[in-house]
Amino acid sequence: MAESWVNSAERIGADLHLELSGSGSRRAALIHALRDAVRSGRLAPGTRLPPYRSLAADLGVARNTVADAYAELVAEGWLTARQGSGTRVAERAAPPPRVRVPKRAPAARNAPPPHHLIQGQPDAGSFPRTAWLAAARRALTAAPNDAFGPGDPRGRIELRRALADYLARARGVRTDPERIVVCSGFAHALRLLFGTAGSGGGVLRGPLAVEAYGLGFHRSILDAARVRTVPLPLDEHGARVEELAAMTGPVRAVLLTPAHQFPTGGPLHPERRAAVVDWARTHSGLVLEDDYDGEFRYDREPVGAVQGLDPERVVYVGSVSKSLSPAVRLGWLVLPEHLVDAVVTAKGEREAWASAPDQLTLAELIESGQYDRHVRRMRQRYRRRRDQLVAALAEHAPHITVTGIAAGLHAVLRLPPGTEASAVKAAAWHGVGLEGLASYRHPAATATAPDGLVVGYATPPEHAYAAALDALCRALPPA
Amino acid sequence: MAESWVNSAERIGADLHLELSGSGSRRAALIHALRDAVRSGRLAPGTRLPPYRSLAADLGVARNTVADAYAELVAEGWLTARQGSGTRVAERAAPPPRVRVPKRAPAARNAPPPHHLIQGQPDAGSFPRTAWLAAARRALTAAPNDAFGPGDPRGRIELRRALADYLARARGVRTDPERIVVCSGFAHALRLLFGTAGSGGGVLRGPLAVEAYGLGFHRSILDAARVRTVPLPLDEHGARVEELAAMTGPVRAVLLTPAHQFPTGGPLHPERRAAVVDWARTHSGLVLEDDYDGEFRYDREPVGAVQGLDPERVVYVGSVSKSLSPAVRLGWLVLPEHLVDAVVTAKGEREAWASAPDQLTLAELIESGQYDRHVRRMRQRYRRRRDQLVAALAEHAPHITVTGIAAGLHAVLRLPPGTEASAVKAAAWHGVGLEGLASYRHPAATATAPDGLVVGYATPPEHAYAAALDALCRALPPA
Repeated sequence: MAESWVNSAERIGADLHLELSGSGSRRAALIHALRDAVRSGRLAPGTRLPPYRSLAADLGVARNTVADAYAELVAEGWLTARQGSGTRVAERAAPPPRVRVPKRAPAARNAPPPHHLIQGQPDAGSFPRTAWLAAARRALTAAPNDAFGPGDPRGRIELRRALADYLARARGVRTDPERIVVCSGFAHALRLLFGTAGSGGGVLRGPLAVEAYGLGFHRSILDAARVRTVPLPLDEHGARVEELAAMTGPVRAVLLTPAHQFPTGGPLHPERRAAVVDWARTHSGLVLEDDYDGEFRYDREPVGAVQGLDPERVVYVGSVSKSLSPAVRLGWLVLPEHLVDAVVTAKGEREAWASAPDQLTLAELIESGQYDRHVRRMRQRYRRRRDQLVAALAEHAPHITVTGIAAGLHAVLRLPPGTEASAVKAAAWHGVGLEGLASYRHPAATATAPDGLVVGYATPPEHAYAAALDALCRALPPA
Repeated sequence: MAESWVNSAERIGADLHLELSGSGSRRAALIHALRDAVRSGRLAPGTRLPPYRSLAADLGVARNTVADAYAELVAEGWLTARQGSGTRVAERAAPPPRVRVPKRAPAARNAPPPHHLIQGQPDAGSFPRTAWLAAARRALTAAPNDAFGPGDPRGRIELRRALADYLARARGVRTDPERIVVCSGFAHALRLLFGTAGSGGGVLRGPLAVEAYGLGFHRSILDAARVRTVPLPLDEHGARVEELAAMTGPVRAVLLTPAHQFPTGGPLHPERRAAVVDWARTHSGLVLEDDYDGEFRYDREPVGAVQGLDPERVVYVGSVSKSLSPAVRLGWLVLPEHLVDAVVTAKGEREAWASAPDQLTLAELIESGQYDRHVRRMRQRYRRRRDQLVAALAEHAPHITVTGIAAGLHAVLRLPPGTEASAVKAAAWHGVGLEGLASYRHPAATATAPDGLVVGYATPPEHAYAAALDALCRALPPA
């Protein structure tokens, strides 16, 4: 070997760019530097490293520091140490392909349009941070230690108690905490009920009747779980539930949005509410009630949940995605007694999904009345936004009307026949993100809804709403 | 009709037990009381209700209050209103079977034994509530509004940035925030990688080699997803990864716990760390590194992750379940570049699982140094507990030794041959919850580990640990 150890140590020492003045131990810095040198190929496989004392002297560190660093890197597989052969760079530690910084632009994935009127999102700027943090402080301070252990798959009892009371009071739901199962949101609920057993699910089987217009995202979860969905036609009274009995399959379950049909916007007629429960009783059927925005009704008090008519025949599903934020991943199933065990089993032996801090915080938010206060505040805000939308149309596009009830976070604008596709394109051209009714249509639906635009008026930040409305009005088809 | 309206109103009024002095509006109280009366059968289907003014007079409320209440209940399907026939109790609103309070005792499901030494759980009483709340306050106050909108399925960028730094520093992981995907924990990561496409998964295919001893819960997730697992024998150097190349299937992926084999407790030998990466490179294979307790090493600094040897061949998975709490449902996958898009797609278009408040809070906890501080504190505490365990055995059962490295949240007690099953029974009899090594054995494993007990010394509250050790020593087989 031509090079003396001291020269080698000097060369390697110089190569290591050790920041001995930096924070962290010298040992850690040396390990880091050696790893980098091997990784980058500056220290080639097979290279023999200088003895401890040489490198220690060159770097001005203790001998033990070098010895420790070598031992660490041997343990990690970067170096090998053999009796009589000293410490070498491992043959296998050849530099792998350099870590590539991906080309994809991180912002592009969900880049919002300038005027964001896509339905389904509450105003993110209205999240009640102060109330949430105060509730978190009270809840986490008061929680028993076991709140930080493995969780009951049904969810925290504090939250299930608060929900049982709240849902009875606000939504006419009849239940008790033992029949509530907390989940991560509606999609999780759907997976628990219909997903394959392998995926934590499989409580119910298809086919499942769904409203002819609905959320494609839900259909795709069901498709992926190989659950056939059968579209139920809609008319001015909502889903034509009287057609359930004749459906082949036979159909034993139906997914409905009774308070505010999504997306067309009407309530299910009282007679049909009763009729669908009747159907379930006489056909061993089950109603899945997706109460996605039931708290938001502007012309009157919200209509109570269908679940109240027969808790043994209706699975009621709700979440905080519209009332509070989709960033808080909490939803709930209110189950008939005979389904509780199966859903809990599908969920698993422990709580593997819903955050205990969030569950405790939401329970406290509800118990303290702050949740109601937030919902009332948002009800006023969204009602005002809907009124502004109606007023803007009356002024700038009187030939276009808002259909459906004054409720929820979206409205449907009825368009002149044949203009929907071009109106969606015109909206995009004007920087308005929204969708036409056609994009919510079940592929097997027999009838087609009149042309319409689905306007999510809750989505934009408060300061941007007026501009979004202006842009929308400019994009609408002429009379 | 024999009865006058006034009498009927009086009867119904008396029956309603209206608490008009209670909180809430009279309207809400009346609706509630009428619903109850119909539900219980006190108002039978078909019963005609008194006109507004009669009931209003009898109850001492405004006529509009009664009118509103009737309208509400008609909308909900409890009552029907027909021109000329007045308001009646709906025929279909027959009382359903009474809601039964389930017999199951809520506490029985996860009732812990008196001395809880089942592995896998950090001390729930040590959750850093104050630091967590302080981090939550700073994080949620500073977060942009979009933190409360629909989330990026990769997870919050704040958390991915904090993790990229932390994992490089603490675990020798080489990555960048673009290659990290946040999830709900290890089980979620396994489902994303191997679950059926229908369940949000299906990135990789089986068969998957697994260590011959491991967590049955993980195997059952894989079984349910119809992924065949092939046991890899263990010896004193850890998993015999040199057998991977000859495995039929062929096997293209292997799940390992290199830092601290679970449950037997040894580290993967440095040569095998390098060899498994070699295998992955030459066989287009993939190493899944389950770094479940890598931060907890008591005899030396933790050995870095295998991932650092080749980030393109190793999927590194970690979570806060051991370091912080299983009640905070946060984990992470550090992915090779070529798997990022597939895993994100499997997760869905939006964040449907991990709580944004928790993600922001954990990011702040890490950035502020409080996470490191907590880990250091717990490292000292668990080290002390392990030392106590070793000392108790030396004193009371010197024929039984603790095997494996001084690391993690559990230890394995080597038992005299043939005594494991009876020792587990004896432990149960003494009120000690723990499991034998046999319960972690892959059903197809060819070799059997020596008899041993898996002791989770982190699980009991601090004050209960000494008593748990006493009980354990009493339950051990005699020399």
